[in-house]
Amino acid sequence: MKFKKEFTAGIIIIGNEILSGRTVDKNTSFIALWLNERGISVEEVRVIPDKEKVIIDTVNELRKKFAYIFTTGGIGPTHDDITAESISKAFNQKYQYHPEAFKILEEFYKNEDFNEGRKKMAKMPEHALLIPNPKTFASGFYVENVFVLPGVPSILQAMLPLLEKIIKPGKKILSFSIDTGLKESIMAEGLSMLQNKYKDIDIGSYPYFKEKPGTVLVLRTTEKELLKKCEEEVKKLVHSLR
Amino acid sequence: MKFKKEFTAGIIIIGNEILSGRTVDKNTSFIALWLNERGISVEEVRVIPDKEKVIIDTVNELRKKFAYIFTTGGIGPTHDDITAESISKAFNQKYQYHPEAFKILEEFYKNEDFNEGRKKMAKMPEHALLIPNPKTFASGFYVENVFVLPGVPSILQAMLPLLEKIIKPGKKILSFSIDTGLKESIMAEGLSMLQNKYKDIDIGSYPYFKEKPGTVLVLRTTEKELLKKCEEEVKKLVHSLR
Repeated sequence: MKFKKEFTAGIIIIGNEILSGRTVDKNTSFIALWLNERGISVEEVRVIPDKEKVIIDTVNELRKKFAYIFTTGGIGPTHDDITAESISKAFNQKYQYHPEAFKILEEFYKNEDFNEGRKKMAKMPEHALLIPNPKTFASGFYVENVFVLPGVPSILQAMLPLLEKIIKPGKKILSFSIDTGLKESIMAEGLSMLQNKYKDIDIGSYPYFKEKPGTVLVLRTTEKELLKKCEEEVKKLVHSLR
Repeated sequence: MKFKKEFTAGIIIIGNEILSGRTVDKNTSFIALWLNERGISVEEVRVIPDKEKVIIDTVNELRKKFAYIFTTGGIGPTHDDITAESISKAFNQKYQYHPEAFKILEEFYKNEDFNEGRKKMAKMPEHALLIPNPKTFASGFYVENVFVLPGVPSILQAMLPLLEKIIKPGKKILSFSIDTGLKESIMAEGLSMLQNKYKDIDIGSYPYFKEKPGTVLVLRTTEKELLKKCEEEVKKLVHSLR
């Protein structure tokens, strides 16, 4: 499958905890599945450290390359949360309090100390637009095509659906998958022929090694009729080899 | 923490199944933890599709940037396994059968059909050196500083330790972590002061939102004595705020 640029996305995972191996990133998978439903293809993911220059360079490189960029992580109240300031610099915009974001936090913390760390969560690029946070009231934001989301999966998952109307959808990416119970290597030749025949379908072959080795095949395309045809041929191939 | 280039690594996850969201990548975490034990810091991870040009460009960019590059995925028998051929092109080396890799597979498949797909797993860049595969006998390989490993986690995990003697170790990265039970925002000021005082320690603050919100703090450094000092101060800070 090849997607027009307008239906492509990149993801930037910002956080030392992923690079150190301490945390397994689950946000990529959630964002990618959500985008695929909307016909947007994730073409690249980068995991980078909480370092200003790296964030700026990566955002500036990828935002030209793809239609949408999603960043996760680094928008909390502590010293290691430098995403919002770095994105301001990437866009040459002032890093300042967003009045609405500030108001939401002020309201939320009214009975607690509204300290500097908490106020910091309302700071963002001058022309940022808010992404509401239904969970903890620290807003995300977007500037042009760069969508800035938190790293905590449960909060990200509550916020992403709120972007529904902002993302211009393409044709939904459909898929069919089958656990063949067969070794990958005996299907290789047949799959290769099918891939040559169905150029608009991505045929993926994913081996596993449990008690017995086997392979899951996954077909992905935006073309419903084509998928059906290819699905039938894949099933035939699998049955002929069992 | 800042690492000399000789103690840095990059990881390239090759596979449409990660970009589509179907599979959550666990290899990054395993490789990073293993490298950290050896004093090597993972500075960047890229997830890219099974597309030749993207693989070539990414490998050629990153292999100059970091001391070690680890790739995962795309070295199986099927049409979508194009990593070995792409890496050959990245290094301008012929893509051909590796005699030893071929012999291992021939031996392994002696009672089965040693078909084209299976033979393909012995094809690699002309000057590749083997990384043995104790699980399924399809070897990995390396060329200069680029280590090419399979995508199936259980196989990768069996192969990575075999690189022990090839990776020149740095000072082991030590860490201390504490679940504070405190909201991140009330620690922000104290943590910021500690981070300024201990510049050779990475102080990470990772909030979670379960029944009650809390925060895990993680200190990382190669300096044992420094870690101890900072650990004490972090504990004091946490107790003072509880």
